[in-house]
Amino acid sequence: MSRQALRLGMVGGGEGAFIGAVHRMAAALDGDWRLVAGAFSTDEGRNTRTGEALGLAPQRVYASLQAMTAGEAALPEDQRIDAVAIVTPNHLHAPMAIAALNAGFHVFCEKPMAMSVVEAEAIAAAAKASRRLFALAFTYSGYPLVEEGRARVAHGDFGAIRLVQVEYLQGWLSLPIDSEGNKQAEWRTDPARAGLGGCLGDIGTHAFQLAEHVSGLRVEAVSAELTTHVAGRRLDDDVSALLRLSGGARGVLKASQVAAGEENGLRLRIHGERGGLEWAQMEPNTLILRWLDRPAEIVRAGGPGLQDSTTALLRTPSGHPEGYIEAFANLYRSLAAAIRGEGNGWYPCVTDGLRTMRFIEAVIANAALDQKWTLVDSGETE
Amino acid sequence: MSRQALRLGMVGGGEGAFIGAVHRMAAALDGDWRLVAGAFSTDEGRNTRTGEALGLAPQRVYASLQAMTAGEAALPEDQRIDAVAIVTPNHLHAPMAIAALNAGFHVFCEKPMAMSVVEAEAIAAAAKASRRLFALAFTYSGYPLVEEGRARVAHGDFGAIRLVQVEYLQGWLSLPIDSEGNKQAEWRTDPARAGLGGCLGDIGTHAFQLAEHVSGLRVEAVSAELTTHVAGRRLDDDVSALLRLSGGARGVLKASQVAAGEENGLRLRIHGERGGLEWAQMEPNTLILRWLDRPAEIVRAGGPGLQDSTTALLRTPSGHPEGYIEAFANLYRSLAAAIRGEGNGWYPCVTDGLRTMRFIEAVIANAALDQKWTLVDSGETE
Amino acid sequence: MSRQALRLGMVGGGEGAFIGAVHRMAAALDGDWRLVAGAFSTDEGRNTRTGEALGLAPQRVYASLQAMTAGEAALPEDQRIDAVAIVTPNHLHAPMAIAALNAGFHVFCEKPMAMSVVEAEAIAAAAKASRRLFALAFTYSGYPLVEEGRARVAHGDFGAIRLVQVEYLQGWLSLPIDSEGNKQAEWRTDPARAGLGGCLGDIGTHAFQLAEHVSGLRVEAVSAELTTHVAGRRLDDDVSALLRLSGGARGVLKASQVAAGEENGLRLRIHGERGGLEWAQMEPNTLILRWLDRPAEIVRAGGPGLQDSTTALLRTPSGHPEGYIEAFANLYRSLAAAIRGEGNGWYPCVTDGLRTMRFIEAVIANAALDQKWTLVDSGETE
Amino acid sequence: MSRQALRLGMVGGGEGAFIGAVHRMAAALDGDWRLVAGAFSTDEGRNTRTGEALGLAPQRVYASLQAMTAGEAALPEDQRIDAVAIVTPNHLHAPMAIAALNAGFHVFCEKPMAMSVVEAEAIAAAAKASRRLFALAFTYSGYPLVEEGRARVAHGDFGAIRLVQVEYLQGWLSLPIDSEGNKQAEWRTDPARAGLGGCLGDIGTHAFQLAEHVSGLRVEAVSAELTTHVAGRRLDDDVSALLRLSGGARGVLKASQVAAGEENGLRLRIHGERGGLEWAQMEPNTLILRWLDRPAEIVRAGGPGLQDSTTALLRTPSGHPEGYIEAFANLYRSLAAAIRGEGNGWYPCVTDGLRTMRFIEAVIANAALDQKWTLVDSGETE
Repeated sequence: MSRQALRLGMVGGGEGAFIGAVHRMAAALDGDWRLVAGAFSTDEGRNTRTGEALGLAPQRVYASLQAMTAGEAALPEDQRIDAVAIVTPNHLHAPMAIAALNAGFHVFCEKPMAMSVVEAEAIAAAAKASRRLFALAFTYSGYPLVEEGRARVAHGDFGAIRLVQVEYLQGWLSLPIDSEGNKQAEWRTDPARAGLGGCLGDIGTHAFQLAEHVSGLRVEAVSAELTTHVAGRRLDDDVSALLRLSGGARGVLKASQVAAGEENGLRLRIHGERGGLEWAQMEPNTLILRWLDRPAEIVRAGGPGLQDSTTALLRTPSGHPEGYIEAFANLYRSLAAAIRGEGNGWYPCVTDGLRTMRFIEAVIANAALDQKWTLVDSGETE
Repeated sequence: MSRQALRLGMVGGGEGAFIGAVHRMAAALDGDWRLVAGAFSTDEGRNTRTGEALGLAPQRVYASLQAMTAGEAALPEDQRIDAVAIVTPNHLHAPMAIAALNAGFHVFCEKPMAMSVVEAEAIAAAAKASRRLFALAFTYSGYPLVEEGRARVAHGDFGAIRLVQVEYLQGWLSLPIDSEGNKQAEWRTDPARAGLGGCLGDIGTHAFQLAEHVSGLRVEAVSAELTTHVAGRRLDDDVSALLRLSGGARGVLKASQVAAGEENGLRLRIHGERGGLEWAQMEPNTLILRWLDRPAEIVRAGGPGLQDSTTALLRTPSGHPEGYIEAFANLYRSLAAAIRGEGNGWYPCVTDGLRTMRFIEAVIANAALDQKWTLVDSGETE
Repeated sequence: MSRQALRLGMVGGGEGAFIGAVHRMAAALDGDWRLVAGAFSTDEGRNTRTGEALGLAPQRVYASLQAMTAGEAALPEDQRIDAVAIVTPNHLHAPMAIAALNAGFHVFCEKPMAMSVVEAEAIAAAAKASRRLFALAFTYSGYPLVEEGRARVAHGDFGAIRLVQVEYLQGWLSLPIDSEGNKQAEWRTDPARAGLGGCLGDIGTHAFQLAEHVSGLRVEAVSAELTTHVAGRRLDDDVSALLRLSGGARGVLKASQVAAGEENGLRLRIHGERGGLEWAQMEPNTLILRWLDRPAEIVRAGGPGLQDSTTALLRTPSGHPEGYIEAFANLYRSLAAAIRGEGNGWYPCVTDGLRTMRFIEAVIANAALDQKWTLVDSGETE
Repeated sequence: MSRQALRLGMVGGGEGAFIGAVHRMAAALDGDWRLVAGAFSTDEGRNTRTGEALGLAPQRVYASLQAMTAGEAALPEDQRIDAVAIVTPNHLHAPMAIAALNAGFHVFCEKPMAMSVVEAEAIAAAAKASRRLFALAFTYSGYPLVEEGRARVAHGDFGAIRLVQVEYLQGWLSLPIDSEGNKQAEWRTDPARAGLGGCLGDIGTHAFQLAEHVSGLRVEAVSAELTTHVAGRRLDDDVSALLRLSGGARGVLKASQVAAGEENGLRLRIHGERGGLEWAQMEPNTLILRWLDRPAEIVRAGGPGLQDSTTALLRTPSGHPEGYIEAFANLYRSLAAAIRGEGNGWYPCVTDGLRTMRFIEAVIANAALDQKWTLVDSGETE
C-alpha cells in the first residue's frame, strides 16, 4: 500500500490477449500501480476499444510505443508514466525495451527477454546507460514458497546440493492448433516471432530460471534433445535436457507442450546431502521438505516456520490460497519498491534474462550435435 | 473490465486489520471498483494514516460512517461513492448497513449479517425500501469450482441428494490468545461485539451457507452441540451439528477453531443416488466428482468439462491457480455488474444472510436443550 | 516366523465369500498359521469343493462346527487345531464362538462380536471360563500407523484431546442390490442375520472401535440418527452421531453405505491442545501430524521417527506399501504370539467387542428418541 | 487357490535378509506355494537357525544349492521341490540359475538377471535347453494398476505414445553407510558382487523394465550420465538418461539412491496424442488417466472401469489397499499357473531380463563417452 500509485503504460495486451490482462490485475492488486496509458494493438479499433474498456483517457491510448514514450515524456513529471509493461510477442521485446529504457522509463518485460543473447546484451546495456530498472516476468519465482525454498537452500538446510529436477508439462499443443487459427499457438510456434526455441523458449526458460534461482547453482553444461512431435510444427514442442550444475550437482530438465492432459505442471525438486524440497506450481501454497533422519514436513504459506523473506510476500493468513496473480503481483510490488528506493524485494532482472538466453542458445546448439555436452556461457568475461 | 470504475467507500479496515485489506484487493483486482473514501477507524491518527497509505484525498477520509454518507451525498453524482464496504466487528453490521442503505448507497457487508434475525430482517427491510443492493461476504461461494459443484447438483448429475457433510476446521484459537491481547481473537470471542455465536458465527455460518448454496437444499432441523474448550473463553469455540435437510437428505456440520494445526479447512462433500462431489477450500481449483459406475473425475478450474457459469468466474487458463482474493473479487464483480444492470452474476445477498441468522438462532436454542431436534425457521411466513 | 505353525480351522468362508479368503491370506502371510480344517458351508458340495481347493485332507472338511470341534478334539494334541476362525454372518458369531471356546479352542471371530450385549457377555464369560483367547477382527487397528497414532496420543504429544472425528464412507449399497440378489448385501441388511444395526453394525462399529482405540478415550454419550435412504431396505444404511467422550472431548461419527462413489473411506482425525493427527485407511502408510507451532509432518510406515511398537508391525522398508491383508495378518500374528505366550502384541479382544456392542445398543436406543443424549453403558458394574 | 501347493526351495535369504523374507511371504500368500527346502546361508549356524525358524525339516536345510538340487532330485517326484527361489547377491544369480535349471527345477530369480549380457544369454540358453521356466523379480510390474496402464496403452486409449518419464528415487545411500558396515549397502556398491552398475543395476533396471513394459515400446538409444556423489563409493549412486524409444517417443529415466529423504519413489508417466497416465508405486492403488478433452480420471484398484486382466490380479474390493507383497505374490501366482499349465498370467521372464542387461551395458558404455547417443542392442540377431 502506498501514498501515490506509480503510473504504468502498457504495450500489447489488447482485448482477448491473456497475459496483458494478467499484468493489469497483478499491477492493480496492491494499489502500487495504476494503468494510465497504453498502446495495446496495432489494430486501431482494437486499441481504442481496449483503452475504453480500461477507463483510460482517450489521449493516452497511443498508436505505438514510440507515440506513447513521446506523448508521456511531454507530460508533467507527476503525471507521466513511470514504467512500461511490454506484453508483445517475443520478437518485439528487445527493440521495445531498449526504446522505452532510452526514453527514460523503467520496463517490466514479458519473457523470454529477447530473441538472442546479443539482443539481451543490448537491453542490458540500455538499462545500464539509462539507469532505469528492467524487470522480467519470471512469474513463478514470485511465489512465496519459492522464496522459502530458495532461502532454505541458501541457508544450507539440506547440505551441498546433489540433484536438481525441474519439469514443466503442458498439453495444450498436443493437436496442430497452431495451423488451425489459435492465435496464442500461432505466434509461439513461428520462429520469426517466437525465436529459436518453441517449447524451449516459452516454458523451458521458466523451468531453467526457477531451477537456478532456487538452487543457487549455475547450469554449467547441457546435453539436450529438442523434438517436434506434431507434424508441420516449425519449432520444438518438447525438450529434454541433462544438466551439470556448479558444485557437482546433476540435473534433469523436462519441458513439453504435448503432454496431453497436463495443464501447467511446473515442478521443482532439489536434493542435498541431508534432505530436499519439492514444490509444484499448481499447488503453490505447499512446500514439502524431506529429511534423511526425520519425517517430511509440509510447509504452508502463512503457516509456522517461514522465513521473513517469505512472509513479506504473503497477503492472507494460512489456508487462504494465494495464486498466480498474487505471485505476479509480488514482482510488480518489488519493482515499485525498487523504483521508490524502498525495501529490498527481489525481482527477476537483466541477470536472469541473460542467463536464460545463454541457456537457450546452448540447448539449441547441443541439440544439433552428436557431442554430449555443451557449455553454457557463464558470461563472466563481460 | 469496464469504462469507469465504480466508487467504493469503506467503514472499518484500518491499518493492521486483515479483512479490510482483502476487500480492497478484491475490489481492485478487476478494475471494477476504485476506493475513494473511507472511515477506517475511530482512532483519528490511525484513520488518517490508513487513508494516506491508500492514496485517498484527505477530505474523503471521514471520522465516521455518518460523516461519510453525508459528505459523499453532497458530492456530484459522478464523483460520490456508489457503495459502502462494511468491514467492522459484527455488532456494527446492522446499524451501519441500514444507515448506508437509507442514505442511498449500496452495501457490501462482512458476515455474519447481523447479531440476530430481528436485526437481519431490519436490513432486509431497509434494502427493500431503499431499492439498494446488499451483498454479503460469503466469500467461499465465489470460488469457480463451488459454482461448478452447485450447477452439477442443480442439473441432477448425482440424482437426489442424500448426504451433505461440511466442515470448517481452524486451530488458531487453541490457546487463550483472546485473553492475551490478540485483537482478532478478542472481539470474536466477545458476545457484545461478535454476537451469540463464537465459532458458530465466525465460521459455522460459512459452512452452513456453502452447504445450502451448493446442495440447493434447506436445512430444516438441527441437533447441535456448542462447546467452549478453552477455559475462560466467553463464546463457543467448537460446533457439531446433525442436519435434516429438505428432501430427506441428512447432514453433518462441524466447525472448530481449536483444531490445533488446522489452517482454514473448509470442506464440502455431497452425495446423491448416483455420485457425489468433494471440494476443499485450501485446494480450491480442484473438484472431485465421484460416480457409482465409473472412475472419479478431477475437474479443474480452467480445464475441460466446465459449465459456462463456472468459466465466467475464471481469469486464467487451467493450471494457473486462482485463490481466495480472486474468489472474493468475483463477488465484487458480480455486485458491480448488478449495480450497472449488466450480466446476471450471482452474489450472496439478504436471503443468504437471513438463512444464516436463522440457523445461528436454531443452533443456539437447540444446544441449550435436551430435546434432539430444533426446526430452522423457514421464514416463509414473511 | 516360528518353528511350527499353529493350526487353524475355519467356519464359514466357502468359495465366493470375501472375508474368508482374506482370513486365510492373513493367517498364511507370516507362516504363523496353517489352515488344516474347515466347515466352510452348509452346502455339502460347496464345502467339499472349498476344502479341495485349499488342499485340505478330506477328513478334516467337516459338515458343521460341532463336527469340527468333535473331530479335532479326537486328534492327537500335536495335530489338532489350535484355534477356530469364525467368518459367518453375524447371528452365528456368538453361538459358534461359545461352542468353540467351550470345546477348548481359541477363537478369531469376525465383527461385530454378537447380536446384542447379552450375547457378547456370554462370549466373554465363555472365554473366561475356558481360559481360551478370543480375538476380534477389528482389522483396521492392525495397521502400523494406527498404532503410531495411538502411541502418540498416549504419550501426550498433542496434549489433552479435544476433538475426535471419525468417518467411514462406502457407496456400495447406493442401489437396492440387497433385494436384487447380491448375497453380501442381502444378509447384511437382514435383521435376522445382521443384527439390529445395518450400516451401524457393519462399519459404524469399525469407526467406533478405531476412535476409542486411538484416542484412548471412552465414548460416554451419543446423540444419533439412523437413516434408511434406499426404499425397502430393512436396516439403516447411514449413521450420524455426535459423541461426548471422556475428559470433555467432543466427537462426530459418520458412517454410510450410500455415499455413492466412495470405496472404503475410513478416516480418523484427532486434535488435542497442541496438535493432532489424521489417518485414512485407503492410504494407510501415511500419518499426518499437525502442530500448532510448527509445520505438519508426514510420518511414513518404515520411515524415521516411529515408535518401536509401530516398527514391530512392519514387514518391509519405507516406500514398500503394506495394505489391508498385512494389517489383518498383524492381528493373526499377535494372537499366535499370545497363544504361545510370547511377545506382547496387541489384538482386539473381548473388551473391544463389548464396548462396541454397548455403543450399538446406545445408538439404536437414542435414534428412536427425541431426547438428545443417551449414555453408553460403561460396563463398569460388571 | 489350488489343490496342492507347489514346493519351493530357496537359496539365500538367511535371517536378517530383507528380500528373502519378502519372497517367502509372497509365495505363501495365496497358498500356491509351500517353502519346504532351503540353502539360506553359507554360515552353517545361520543356515540352520533360519531353517528352524521357518519350520523346515532339518534334512531339507542344505549347505549349498548343489546339495539342495542333489538332495531334492533324490526325493520322490511328489515331494521334491518344483522351483528354486534365488535371493542372493547379483553375482550369484547366473551360476545358480543355470545350475538349478540344468538340475530340472524352475527358477524365480531376483533382479538384475546377471552380471552381463553374456551371462544372461547363458541363462536363457539353459532355460530353453532344460524346458524349465525362469521368472525374474521385476516386482513392480505385478501391481494390478500397472497392468491396467499397460492394457490401456496397448488398446490405444492415448493414441501414439510421445513421452515416457520414469523415475526411481531413494535416499538411503545418501551417507557413506556402505563403508560403515551396512550389509545391504555394502554388497550393492561392490562391483564384484553387484555388477557394473550400482544404482543403475539395483533400481535403474526396475525403472527401465517398467517403462518398456507399460509403454509397449523399446528403448532404442540412450544418452546417459552416471554419477557417484558419495566420496569413496565404488559404483554409481545416481543415473540420468535421455531415451529414444520406438515409434519416435522420447523419454527420461532418472534413478538415484542419494535423493535424501525419498523412500522408494518409483513413478511412471506416459503421454500419447490424446492423453496419458501416471502411476506411483508408493500409492499403487491409484492410476491417474489424463485426457486432452475431458477431466482426468482416478482409476482405483477394485473400482469401476478396470480391464479383466487387472481384476484378475486383485484380492480385495476397492478401498482395501493391496501393496508390495501382493504385487510380488502376483508374480509367484502367475509362475505357479504357468508351471501347472493353467491360465495365462504374465510374469517377467528371460526376455525382460535380457532387455534390462542390454540397457545396463548401453548406459555404461554411453556414460564413458562424449558421444551423445548409444544404441541399445535389440537382440534381434539372436
